[in-house]
Amino acid sequence: MESVTPDSRKASARPDFSAVVPAGGSGTRLWPLSLPDRPKFLHDLRGTGASLLQDTVARLAPVASRMMVVTGVAHAAAVHEQLPALGDDDIVAEPSPRDSMAAIALAAAILEHRHGAHVFGSFAADQVVLRPDELMRAIRIAIEAAEAGAVVTIGIEPLYPATGFGWILRGEPLGDVEGAFRAEAFVEKPDLETAQAYLDEGRHYWNAGMFVMRTDVLLGHLARLQPSLHDGVRTLAAAWDGPDREASLQKVWPTLTKIAIDHAIAEPVAAEGGVAVVASNCDWIDVGDFAVLASIVEPDADGVIRLNRSAPTLALDASGTMVIGGDRPVVIIGVDDVTVVDTPGALLVLGRASAQRVKDAASSLEGA
Amino acid sequence: MESVTPDSRKASARPDFSAVVPAGGSGTRLWPLSLPDRPKFLHDLRGTGASLLQDTVARLAPVASRMMVVTGVAHAAAVHEQLPALGDDDIVAEPSPRDSMAAIALAAAILEHRHGAHVFGSFAADQVVLRPDELMRAIRIAIEAAEAGAVVTIGIEPLYPATGFGWILRGEPLGDVEGAFRAEAFVEKPDLETAQAYLDEGRHYWNAGMFVMRTDVLLGHLARLQPSLHDGVRTLAAAWDGPDREASLQKVWPTLTKIAIDHAIAEPVAAEGGVAVVASNCDWIDVGDFAVLASIVEPDADGVIRLNRSAPTLALDASGTMVIGGDRPVVIIGVDDVTVVDTPGALLVLGRASAQRVKDAASSLEGA
Repeated sequence: MESVTPDSRKASARPDFSAVVPAGGSGTRLWPLSLPDRPKFLHDLRGTGASLLQDTVARLAPVASRMMVVTGVAHAAAVHEQLPALGDDDIVAEPSPRDSMAAIALAAAILEHRHGAHVFGSFAADQVVLRPDELMRAIRIAIEAAEAGAVVTIGIEPLYPATGFGWILRGEPLGDVEGAFRAEAFVEKPDLETAQAYLDEGRHYWNAGMFVMRTDVLLGHLARLQPSLHDGVRTLAAAWDGPDREASLQKVWPTLTKIAIDHAIAEPVAAEGGVAVVASNCDWIDVGDFAVLASIVEPDADGVIRLNRSAPTLALDASGTMVIGGDRPVVIIGVDDVTVVDTPGALLVLGRASAQRVKDAASSLEGA
Repeated sequence: MESVTPDSRKASARPDFSAVVPAGGSGTRLWPLSLPDRPKFLHDLRGTGASLLQDTVARLAPVASRMMVVTGVAHAAAVHEQLPALGDDDIVAEPSPRDSMAAIALAAAILEHRHGAHVFGSFAADQVVLRPDELMRAIRIAIEAAEAGAVVTIGIEPLYPATGFGWILRGEPLGDVEGAFRAEAFVEKPDLETAQAYLDEGRHYWNAGMFVMRTDVLLGHLARLQPSLHDGVRTLAAAWDGPDREASLQKVWPTLTKIAIDHAIAEPVAAEGGVAVVASNCDWIDVGDFAVLASIVEPDADGVIRLNRSAPTLALDASGTMVIGGDRPVVIIGVDDVTVVDTPGALLVLGRASAQRVKDAASSLEGA
């Protein structure tokens, strides 16, 4: 990438930190914008001209000495197109989705095979971070704690009692790394009452799925906890840069255990005392649905939020209007808090309060 | 037209009644469905497969021995296409709009020039009548009263205190024609209080703009009340079926007084005692806006009104949904009483209660 020149690396990046960006997920609550063949991370959801994937890669440039994107084979070409500075070796194409642990462990194994054991981090391609410098500060602390052997996660300081995320319980300070704490437990999405209690106690963070650790530490835990998955990714990594990659993929990939990194590593290793957490208030946003999207895009002077539109948009007797996409004039009259998504394949008219139901519509239409 | 065969005429139609159908008006409150180059009367607004114009002509067939459509030159081809049974002589193309009196008087003058003085009626092309047989009953009475020399209007029995129509005040029975009454006055669109009083009194009808009269009676009144307009249409009619039509149109048409038949004839002749009214409860509907349209199209089993759609339409947590046009899937979630109009040129999302504001949107966009 242009932003990660050798010179800029020397100035600000640690010498050996690999940033891994899993680019997957369908984003069905953003239908019909996000589609299986054009998922969320490929879209410019902030109207800045950059996709979430491009934003993610650019944000990590100051700390990363190298970048690796792991994506589905169907999206590899689009990823290449959006990130022309990445080489073929920097994009790992999965033949089929096998959940986050396989994706991250394969990246770690390939990176270790190429460069020896070193610290890497995993950061999903479809998240928004409004204060990237603050996140980089937290990642530098996480790298320090990871060098000492911990699996480190970035805990997002919570702003409200979110029921849509998992949470992380903070323990005692690590002592040897300023700003890092023991992560006592990962907890699943709570109900509202529990989430409110977490918020009140002040000892919980949102789990943004960001992990920083040494390749050998991760693969060591994996060898104990998910040995067949470990062996599989080691086999793939050994063949990856030679003539047997495809044969190895065909043989090994379908056998890999489908499991999330939270269940495979974060939860059991936290229970053993091996996970650390570094807090960050980096304004991290999981753009899970159109209501969240409406909250992060600035409205124009007339109060209307326009995203990726080229034609006139007019709202009469209507507040809280958001219109996404489309090259035809769109007029909204006498309906408040409505989101209109105008794509070539489908049209969505959504009341803001019903944003969570969009995935039901997507699946209903598929069944129709 | 196929429905007006010589045989069917003999069976049910009076021998000499011409039906004139003025097909004009832009219908801006039905934007973006109704457009200047494709106005309301050319659209199938009931989802029956027939346009309002085709409906109007078919409805009049049982009483009409001939049909004449008067329309703008820009729409003559579309009218021909929708009414293939009409001959060139049956469609009068106006070079420019000069209001209803010029259109109707020109038709009357041409008809009289061709066939001698006889009774004709004028019926707008963009209205809906759900009980056409009942209207035909009223028209037959109107023809009888017209033969005796009256200008006769069909008064629609009012269902609510409408402020969007003019009203007609009924006087004494004509005596010689059962079911016909003196029309004492035509009143402009009233305010709600006045409309309620009209409804309570039971002596007022809605003015649907339907008039039945002898060609010579109309042209006689016109000669007294609008002499230059009378002379103009007589000149045009004399030239119409010869080689000088175009020259005559170029010379005379731009000079014709722009005035509505209500002001030119109905109001002054009513004041003189020369207008009769025949009441009808034919379920006449002026499809003025999308709220009215929603009231006349049957919803499907899921409660959604679909009009001229070929793709799936899904409403979740949404009642009173109407979707018009479009060949893409449309999904409405969490918004009640919303109308979506999906056309190639523009997209409208409308709260039912704001139907009257649509014309503001159309004009705003034109100005943009």
